[in-house]
Amino acid sequence: MPSLCRIKASGLKLQLCTNETQATREDFVRKLRGLGFDISVSEVTAPAPAACHLLRERGLRPHLLVHHDLVPEFAEIDKTNPNCVVLGDAAENFTYANLNEAFRLLIGMEKPVLISLGKGRYYKETDGLKLDVGAYMKALEYACDVQAEVVGKPAKSFFESALAELGVPPEQAIMIGDDIVSDVGGAQKCGMRALQVRTGKYR
Amino acid sequence: MPSLCRIKASGLKLQLCTNETQATREDFVRKLRGLGFDISVSEVTAPAPAACHLLRERGLRPHLLVHHDLVPEFAEIDKTNPNCVVLGDAAENFTYANLNEAFRLLIGMEKPVLISLGKGRYYKETDGLKLDVGAYMKALEYACDVQAEVVGKPAKSFFESALAELGVPPEQAIMIGDDIVSDVGGAQKCGMRALQVRTGKYR
Repeated sequence: MPSLCRIKASGLKLQLCTNETQATREDFVRKLRGLGFDISVSEVTAPAPAACHLLRERGLRPHLLVHHDLVPEFAEIDKTNPNCVVLGDAAENFTYANLNEAFRLLIGMEKPVLISLGKGRYYKETDGLKLDVGAYMKALEYACDVQAEVVGKPAKSFFESALAELGVPPEQAIMIGDDIVSDVGGAQKCGMRALQVRTGKYR
Repeated sequence: MPSLCRIKASGLKLQLCTNETQATREDFVRKLRGLGFDISVSEVTAPAPAACHLLRERGLRPHLLVHHDLVPEFAEIDKTNPNCVVLGDAAENFTYANLNEAFRLLIGMEKPVLISLGKGRYYKETDGLKLDVGAYMKALEYACDVQAEVVGKPAKSFFESALAELGVPPEQAIMIGDDIVSDVGGAQKCGMRALQVRTGKYR
């Protein structure tokens, strides 16, 4: 928290890049503010808004297999007669029936379009490790013989939209994160420098 | 059915090779006999008995993520303190909780061992297409960074055990099936000739 304050006080621009897909940006920011972080919604780049941008750009109407709490992010998106599937960390929504439903929609498309809000393998919660969205993405990729388009970190487009938000070119930005692939690798592929911190999930 | 009768009447030896993992061999044979096929349990090679053979050979104690009706096949196998996961087409047992449980066991092993009773992508039931065991295998493979050992078709060991049952060398056997990969490809890799029939799932 002191680091965040110092960055903001120094006049440097700041954008949080998160792969959070179990809550809207609004809820995510509310949680951070509750913890004492002075952050606003416009300072957060997250996969769901990036997906909405992509959906609008390509005229795609998604079937959502995402967490309940993320659904409001797609409120403005036409979801009738779906022509793609958007996959997030759906947690309890990853039921046998819901996976079959998403699969049937995909396999029924002339050219299946699968958009994934991340490709994490697993994450840790208080009650133990959980399979992350990447595992379910692989299941659908294999069953439908299709390659998912990943819109969260480490996708290049994700970092580009964060840079656009900041209004700076990649060579003037630095990415700070604990994940060597999603944070550091993704940013470097985008032409940014990157710094790995030895906190969070760093081992 | 007439073909089966003619093969048996001619004195040729016959072995059914199935990837069925939603029922024991006993139930499978009962179903076939009910349809008028003169088949006995010893004439059926199926993934679960092949898996049991492998488990015994290597002293592995499985955690089972399989269909309820398949569990009796593993009755004689020690399942205490599991040191591997056996994955079948678990159907309704493919819950979020059960997948996380299998994942946690695997990721907690020094060297995760994942045995899959098949690698089918999907299959058709009266109420539509369903994700098959292969999709869930890919999810666990990705999450645990491990490669599953497949014991059903098209595994070479599977055809070898069918040949052992018949007591004939591969060059004296012919495999007949509708699947170009599991049936024809698998048998050919084993040194057998193979014939694809244009029935069943053939398109």
